Amino acid sequence: MRAYDALKEYMDRAMAIRTAMTLFEWDNETLAPRQAGALTAEVIGSLSGEYFSIITGTEFAACLAACQEEDGELTEAESANVRELAEELERIKCIPREEYQAFARLTAQAGAVWAQAKRDRNFMAFAPALASIIQYQKKFAAYRAKEGEALYDVMLDEYEKGFSMKNLDVFFGEIRTELTPLLQKIREKGRRIDDSFLRGDYPADKQERLARFLAEYVGFDFEKGVLGVSAHPFTTNLHNRDVRITTHYTDRVDSSLFSVIHEAGHGIYEMGIRDDLTLTPAGQGASMGMHESQSRFFENIIGRSSAFWIPIYEKLRALFPDELGEIPREAFVAAVNKVEPGLIRTEADELTYSLHVLIRYEIEKLLIEEDMDVRDIPRVWADKYEEYLGLRPSHDGEGALQDIHWAQGSFGYFPSYALGSAFGAQIYFHMRKAMDFDGLLERGELGVIREYLREHIHQYGRIRTSRQLLIDMTGEDFNPDYYVWYLKEKYGEIYRVR
Amino acid sequence: MRAYDALKEYMDRAMAIRTAMTLFEWDNETLAPRQAGALTAEVIGSLSGEYFSIITGTEFAACLAACQEEDGELTEAESANVRELAEELERIKCIPREEYQAFARLTAQAGAVWAQAKRDRNFMAFAPALASIIQYQKKFAAYRAKEGEALYDVMLDEYEKGFSMKNLDVFFGEIRTELTPLLQKIREKGRRIDDSFLRGDYPADKQERLARFLAEYVGFDFEKGVLGVSAHPFTTNLHNRDVRITTHYTDRVDSSLFSVIHEAGHGIYEMGIRDDLTLTPAGQGASMGMHESQSRFFENIIGRSSAFWIPIYEKLRALFPDELGEIPREAFVAAVNKVEPGLIRTEADELTYSLHVLIRYEIEKLLIEEDMDVRDIPRVWADKYEEYLGLRPSHDGEGALQDIHWAQGSFGYFPSYALGSAFGAQIYFHMRKAMDFDGLLERGELGVIREYLREHIHQYGRIRTSRQLLIDMTGEDFNPDYYVWYLKEKYGEIYRVR
Repeated sequence: MRAYDALKEYMDRAMAIRTAMTLFEWDNETLAPRQAGALTAEVIGSLSGEYFSIITGTEFAACLAACQEEDGELTEAESANVRELAEELERIKCIPREEYQAFARLTAQAGAVWAQAKRDRNFMAFAPALASIIQYQKKFAAYRAKEGEALYDVMLDEYEKGFSMKNLDVFFGEIRTELTPLLQKIREKGRRIDDSFLRGDYPADKQERLARFLAEYVGFDFEKGVLGVSAHPFTTNLHNRDVRITTHYTDRVDSSLFSVIHEAGHGIYEMGIRDDLTLTPAGQGASMGMHESQSRFFENIIGRSSAFWIPIYEKLRALFPDELGEIPREAFVAAVNKVEPGLIRTEADELTYSLHVLIRYEIEKLLIEEDMDVRDIPRVWADKYEEYLGLRPSHDGEGALQDIHWAQGSFGYFPSYALGSAFGAQIYFHMRKAMDFDGLLERGELGVIREYLREHIHQYGRIRTSRQLLIDMTGEDFNPDYYVWYLKEKYGEIYRVR
Repeated sequence: MRAYDALKEYMDRAMAIRTAMTLFEWDNETLAPRQAGALTAEVIGSLSGEYFSIITGTEFAACLAACQEEDGELTEAESANVRELAEELERIKCIPREEYQAFARLTAQAGAVWAQAKRDRNFMAFAPALASIIQYQKKFAAYRAKEGEALYDVMLDEYEKGFSMKNLDVFFGEIRTELTPLLQKIREKGRRIDDSFLRGDYPADKQERLARFLAEYVGFDFEKGVLGVSAHPFTTNLHNRDVRITTHYTDRVDSSLFSVIHEAGHGIYEMGIRDDLTLTPAGQGASMGMHESQSRFFENIIGRSSAFWIPIYEKLRALFPDELGEIPREAFVAAVNKVEPGLIRTEADELTYSLHVLIRYEIEKLLIEEDMDVRDIPRVWADKYEEYLGLRPSHDGEGALQDIHWAQGSFGYFPSYALGSAFGAQIYFHMRKAMDFDGLLERGELGVIREYLREHIHQYGRIRTSRQLLIDMTGEDFNPDYYVWYLKEKYGEIYRVR
């Protein structure tokens, strides 16, 4: 028996538990009744304990060591799984089992606490849970930190291998120094764009028909996926034949429309992962940043382009004759690219978006590296929004409670959003040379673009890191300049400023 | 440390896995994309292996034995769990692990095969999967059969402790000899009832509003449960704070209306189970028959009574003015009690319902005890429908493929439906003496009825068997005469035959 086959037995068991936990997460966000939370959290705590036992068991470690010795005889996919499993073991073996399970239970419940606090616009109701989550995350990071390694760097590395505060300070520094003046110019001298028609009485059932059409149009396969509804749009996947996206239907038609394209981008990534990786640890997106690069590529670079709407705008107009009947395509495209500093990250335009992420990055550094008290978050949040975007939230619901991530224990995740946008820009500059990008969009031939992304990125899952994928595809390591160039070029043209 | 606390650790782990598998079942029936089946079945196979390992492990057996010695010191709930776990161990320890997992995988996939075969009206496409399922079930029953015990009796006992072919032959014999002549009389001499208005263009969204209203009216708590949609209405529960029912919306308004009351009956049972039993093996309905007694009690004895509609019929009429505006309440109640032999069990009236179950009981006996070839099922099915109900199916979709149960591996389950109706009738005769039953319905005070059922049945979970519950509640062991009396009294009056 090959060492890998012995390992695979444990891997399959661990993946089954993980898949079950993923289904519970999906279910919690989309359907579970209000009172289910506490008991279901117990179940999730138990499942996480099973997972922990499998990964940290002595047999598993022995199999893993044997595989590492036989690495030369493994396939590419097998080798990636051995590496992923070894990293996972490193990550969790230093955590006491009780703490590991307690944290799983805590985050399984914190989502409901956060949601209620958000409805009540009361950050302090969420603060105790958040303080516990941060305490656990710092403790866990300390367990596995190398000599002298900063805790926040440990967290960042989990989402984006090879990125630390050192790189990110430079990256966000460039964003701040280059984009803040551009935003200033646009606000002072740019043309005024009317987007009032995006808000209105857009019926939910028609929005849903549109959402399904758009998801399918960009390449989401409904044989292998479903579209649901949740307060906050998200994507989850059980495996490459079961990928789930959600959206929400509000009085802003562009909100559901672009969130569904965004989530479809995530979904297309997962559906494109090779079959020999499915239901294995390497059978996921390369990193959070690379995942966001794909979702934001579909949402912004494709979805907000003028060319994208040429073949389908009439369909949209026919669906909403009262709202859009008088609106020419050019006015619609301009409206969905309007730059306007706002309080809500997920509704931000492409230009101000990265400033929302910058604020979260700075606050996470304060929380993790400076031990800032969680009760200071609302004040610091408001101050930073005022500084970067010129606005203060009028309540916590549109302030520090807007995102679910911290309730899920995700610290170090937010930077991935900005990194993803930057990866996407680099990919876009490359693809414009490799193909007639706009022509394909104009002719509705999205399959060519999607297939190119599948071939160069999606299929590999976690076999390659995000940086390696960028190098192999574009011939160049990550270079944030493309992002700045992209935004300057795009918004300079739209707003006629330089 | 108490022996029970040591056992509880294993029990919690096993219940977490079972709860996850339950969520997958729910998800498969309500939402999962079409292509997910095969991979998800692998996951379910792995989870069933985890469950098997926990229950059949040496530590578990040792803890269980220690608890059995300490039985006098256990609470009622603890003692029931020890008994349930010991029975579960007996049931599965004789099965080889690979067969146990393979069967879980097989049934996880068979649902999709059955659904496709049903859509295609082609029994033979389902026959191979069904043959495998039967082979496994016979093998498993043989593993645990006592000396000389019939395999079908082993299966029956799993769903209804203390019931075997011996009892059921008597029970179904009584049904056949008493009800067939009554049906004959009704068809020859009974009054004619118009139910044409139940079929029509009842919009799905209004049906859904009605379904939610009715579920809540009979006592389903939407804080602890959800209502979904599936091809076949069913109920599932993760625990007593997360109970899920489904219905379907067709052109027969009574179909969704009574299926939602039926499933709400199941749901109310699960929601009523004591908190000290939740997420434990004893935290479920006492038996399948007792479960069906509650669902059919709500659906038929409550829901199809004249008194039930007095407080709410105007609401129904206001919702569907075009369809029901001209229909007086008495005509509506008569229509939903119309006796008419049909081909579909789930749409059968109360009188012919048990004949549908009888047919399945007889076919299961042939399959398990006489080794009948599965390919003979469609012919035997049609012959029996002709014999008992005077009708032959025109295709397999309305014949042997109509029910999902066999695809799920459930053999010996169907008799529970008829037993449940009979339990319900016995409970009804008792309750009519204990309270002003019709008066409560007329005044819309369903809470009194529901609370009585909760106090005498629901709260106990599996602490008591169905027969014990009947004895404790009604002062009498199971007596099928009540069922025959109930049907004769009810339909004699409606159809004016004796």
